[in-house]
Amino acid sequence: MDIVPHLVSGDVRSLARAISLVEENAPGSADLLRATFPHAGRARVLGVTGAPGAGKSTLVDRLVALYRAERRRVGVVAVDPSSAFSGGSILGDRVRMQGHATDPDVFIRSMATRGHLGGMARATNDAVDLMDAAGFDPILVETVGVGQDEVEVVRTADVVLVVLVPGMGDDIQAIKAGILEIADLFVVNKADRPGADRLVADLESLMSLAPEGRPGPEIVRTIAVAGDGIADLAVGIERFLGTSGSTRRGARHRERAESRFLALLSERVLSKVLSGALPEDALARVVAEIAERRVDPYTAVERVLARVEVR
Amino acid sequence: MDIVPHLVSGDVRSLARAISLVEENAPGSADLLRATFPHAGRARVLGVTGAPGAGKSTLVDRLVALYRAERRRVGVVAVDPSSAFSGGSILGDRVRMQGHATDPDVFIRSMATRGHLGGMARATNDAVDLMDAAGFDPILVETVGVGQDEVEVVRTADVVLVVLVPGMGDDIQAIKAGILEIADLFVVNKADRPGADRLVADLESLMSLAPEGRPGPEIVRTIAVAGDGIADLAVGIERFLGTSGSTRRGARHRERAESRFLALLSERVLSKVLSGALPEDALARVVAEIAERRVDPYTAVERVLARVEVR
Repeated sequence: MDIVPHLVSGDVRSLARAISLVEENAPGSADLLRATFPHAGRARVLGVTGAPGAGKSTLVDRLVALYRAERRRVGVVAVDPSSAFSGGSILGDRVRMQGHATDPDVFIRSMATRGHLGGMARATNDAVDLMDAAGFDPILVETVGVGQDEVEVVRTADVVLVVLVPGMGDDIQAIKAGILEIADLFVVNKADRPGADRLVADLESLMSLAPEGRPGPEIVRTIAVAGDGIADLAVGIERFLGTSGSTRRGARHRERAESRFLALLSERVLSKVLSGALPEDALARVVAEIAERRVDPYTAVERVLARVEVR
Repeated sequence: MDIVPHLVSGDVRSLARAISLVEENAPGSADLLRATFPHAGRARVLGVTGAPGAGKSTLVDRLVALYRAERRRVGVVAVDPSSAFSGGSILGDRVRMQGHATDPDVFIRSMATRGHLGGMARATNDAVDLMDAAGFDPILVETVGVGQDEVEVVRTADVVLVVLVPGMGDDIQAIKAGILEIADLFVVNKADRPGADRLVADLESLMSLAPEGRPGPEIVRTIAVAGDGIADLAVGIERFLGTSGSTRRGARHRERAESRFLALLSERVLSKVLSGALPEDALARVVAEIAERRVDPYTAVERVLARVEVR
């Protein structure tokens, strides 16, 4: 592929084209990833998740500015569930990160995967790898949504920031309980709002429930819009990456490899089985039968499975 | 199966057990779904989505009270991404719907699927079907997260309520753009907050961009904590279900059938391929090779695919 040497030397236009090819699952995209794969694996991947409205975008924007001041080339991937349904990602790119739009050493990309069932996880991991091969480091992966797929994607980052904000509802409580396990660092953003102290106290008491011997995640307070606490956050990130050690880093890389392999395998196997056993018309017929309750989905799936052989 | 006649006659303990079996993918769960399938397909399914903190739980709680006053048996499924990682769903069940906890004609269930890659969509659809077969109608499906999987699950409900709240950040804007397409009805909750009028105006201007001839979703203002607007909302729901007609309803049922069939097929095919081609140790070896960058995921997947034959 023509594009590979340019991408590996850091050319952003080649990188943008490569990500589009991969996202569309275009012919040749697998070869592209194969060829760039040996050049990736160096970048630090920072996962940023938390509820919508917590100020993740602004926080990411400030971290980008800080890393740019250190003359690092920074990649950003925004995992955007809305883009699965409409032009959300385009809107997202426009409202997001306007301050860095003209900086060639900041590469921002929203993932607009329309497919479902793992397509987003696959495309996001591929985009991170391509940015990595193009010399971007660190790479920030930000989720817009807080869903299973999105959490799965950030979970395997080298460091996972969970962004919380004081004074939200019960939903947040439920989410908080769930993401406690994946957080390496808690960011209490909008820390000038009422309830910040209570949120910090809640987090500390949640952490006291953690398994013995495992140190709880550090808590950093920020006011991202004002830039407050961003330097502390960067120090916290470095501290985590420094102390987490190579064993932990190796474990994360294996988890990421597994999630990536399974997402890709799932996508490819489903596509192979559908095209082999249920070309378009046949799929529509089966779906109609299920919708009219003439066959149940379990029986329909078993009929297809019976035609699949694994040697 | 012993459990089927009890479930179909409306016994809630059998229903609870059936959902657990299905969620765990226990042996016999496919037979269970096969046997109950002909008894389902009657219930109205109401999807409720929106950002965390928008007050979805309270809104659902109020709708449940309203339907209970009409002596309907109401099912609630909470699709909770956090539960994929920890005890989030248990917490969720406890904080949720405490007012209906002792009412045998309200059946509430959080989905705590640990698997990824479509497992949640599959289990949620199965739970709805089981509640339907047990005579619950309507069934409210509420997402806690706003992710790809969650949206996929509510998207195919008979009516989709998108809950928004005045005065949230940019993230909401992006999500709003994305969920515009799936909304049958917008709920502007916490409508006494500043910014409610602007939010309604924003929604109206977004809808003016919709394709010609397609009427935009109705907008209903609520203050769920005070019970304000809930009766209007119920009327709006009935109006949508009444006017959407059998063509549209048929299309939704086909979409739901397709999403359900593909989710199940994906899960089963992956599991068959993994157990056939990569029993546990082999999977760990491949993952380690990818993590150490000795092989790229595309090549690894192709090696597996080469062993899959579709007759």
